[in-house]
Amino acid sequence: MEEKTITQVPKPIILKLGGSVISIKNKSFALNKRAIMRLAKEIERADVSSLIIVHGGGSFGHPVAKQYKIDEGYKDSSQIIGFSKTHQAMTILNKHVTDSLINRKIPAVEIQPSSIIITRSGRIHIMEERPLTRLLELGFIPILYGDAVPDSSNGFAILSGDQLVSQLAIRLNVDRIIMGVDVDGLYTADPKACPSARLLQHITLQQLKKLRKNIEKTNATDVTGGMLGKILELIPALEHRVNVRIVNALKPGNVYRALKGEVVGTFIEKG
Amino acid sequence: MEEKTITQVPKPIILKLGGSVISIKNKSFALNKRAIMRLAKEIERADVSSLIIVHGGGSFGHPVAKQYKIDEGYKDSSQIIGFSKTHQAMTILNKHVTDSLINRKIPAVEIQPSSIIITRSGRIHIMEERPLTRLLELGFIPILYGDAVPDSSNGFAILSGDQLVSQLAIRLNVDRIIMGVDVDGLYTADPKACPSARLLQHITLQQLKKLRKNIEKTNATDVTGGMLGKILELIPALEHRVNVRIVNALKPGNVYRALKGEVVGTFIEKG
Repeated sequence: MEEKTITQVPKPIILKLGGSVISIKNKSFALNKRAIMRLAKEIERADVSSLIIVHGGGSFGHPVAKQYKIDEGYKDSSQIIGFSKTHQAMTILNKHVTDSLINRKIPAVEIQPSSIIITRSGRIHIMEERPLTRLLELGFIPILYGDAVPDSSNGFAILSGDQLVSQLAIRLNVDRIIMGVDVDGLYTADPKACPSARLLQHITLQQLKKLRKNIEKTNATDVTGGMLGKILELIPALEHRVNVRIVNALKPGNVYRALKGEVVGTFIEKG
Repeated sequence: MEEKTITQVPKPIILKLGGSVISIKNKSFALNKRAIMRLAKEIERADVSSLIIVHGGGSFGHPVAKQYKIDEGYKDSSQIIGFSKTHQAMTILNKHVTDSLINRKIPAVEIQPSSIIITRSGRIHIMEERPLTRLLELGFIPILYGDAVPDSSNGFAILSGDQLVSQLAIRLNVDRIIMGVDVDGLYTADPKACPSARLLQHITLQQLKKLRKNIEKTNATDVTGGMLGKILELIPALEHRVNVRIVNALKPGNVYRALKGEVVGTFIEKG
């Protein structure tokens, strides 16, 4: 094969699969096997030309990270083994997702965030994306995840899948982001707690920033049930004119439709 | 924790664990569990202050890589899924080794070569070692392996654990390399085929180059049964004044002794 340049490669799509979609929340190390297998089928069927997958930690990474307070950084040496265990838990979850894709002949390749990223006070500071880019050029589907990563000021940190999505979107100049979550989109209130919550079908970056301001001003908790916090992480990507679609990945067909370009759930754009 | 510099960190040791030590040769996907558990114990007992482990592919990576001709580079699209499968096979082997170390409270962290390296015609060309270095500073034990990696001219390539060891030794300025293999060291002939083969206890870089020249001149096969080929890969590290010890890691106690600085097997130095 001749040396290839990146120029002819189509803009990739980033698909985020939430931890609460691929694992059973509140039950340690419990896979949602049925959802994983269905999603692999939808990804195969959609057959997009360039795709990156990022998944969350769900009931694999989170309980171990919490036990050892990995998100608080290095405070004493007893946490060291906890970092190893947190990363190891994430590789188990990743293995299941990757295997499901490979079984459908989707050429997924794990890219391990803790091998390529150093954060500084929890924010991505150094990131080596060239091997990932090269694999993408060749037709592979890189698959990354929220991970315990080395941190230049705090020793180590927890890198969320959402922060990773936002950074990848900018660095790889992606076409769009699809956030596969366990609710139908961004609501005016927590849809799990409040029946009158209304789904926002379309919002702009400016409206999103307004929502953030209101929360900061009133020092209120995230009334949307955590979804707003996830989306605020995507502001840098939105600023970069990358559109975001939030879809319920627990409902069959939604991820397929979003990959095909249909608007389901909440659509967010710079505007 | 304050921001740390690398200056006070002791020089690391690289321990290579051959694929034929940690897996059963000629039997696909067969672990040598007993050896892995014993080696974890020896590493725990030796308690060296800075250590990097690199392991081979053995009966995990090699059969899959061979089936899809990954070492020949990208020739047709049917190999793509083979690359994914080869890497996935290596992560299974790595998981077993890493778990055995973590079970003994050794803070091992997998560093995935295919995430941090791009080769050019099979030789390491780009390598991001900063996250690895940061983890080493914090007291972790990075664990790497021979892997299928992206290649800038051939699409992809097989990176041997031996080439990786040599590059890491130079880039991280290591103290010494311990090659844990399934024979007692470098012999004058293949010890498995020739009973009169004599173990070389000490050789210099110059003598090693002479052996290489003889092979090149006569176009002979590697009479040492493949061991010389492995060691020739380490010439750049030897040039860099990193000493190499070859020990039989299938014999209990040898890796422990080598980690403690004892000379067992073959000792190679620049001289």
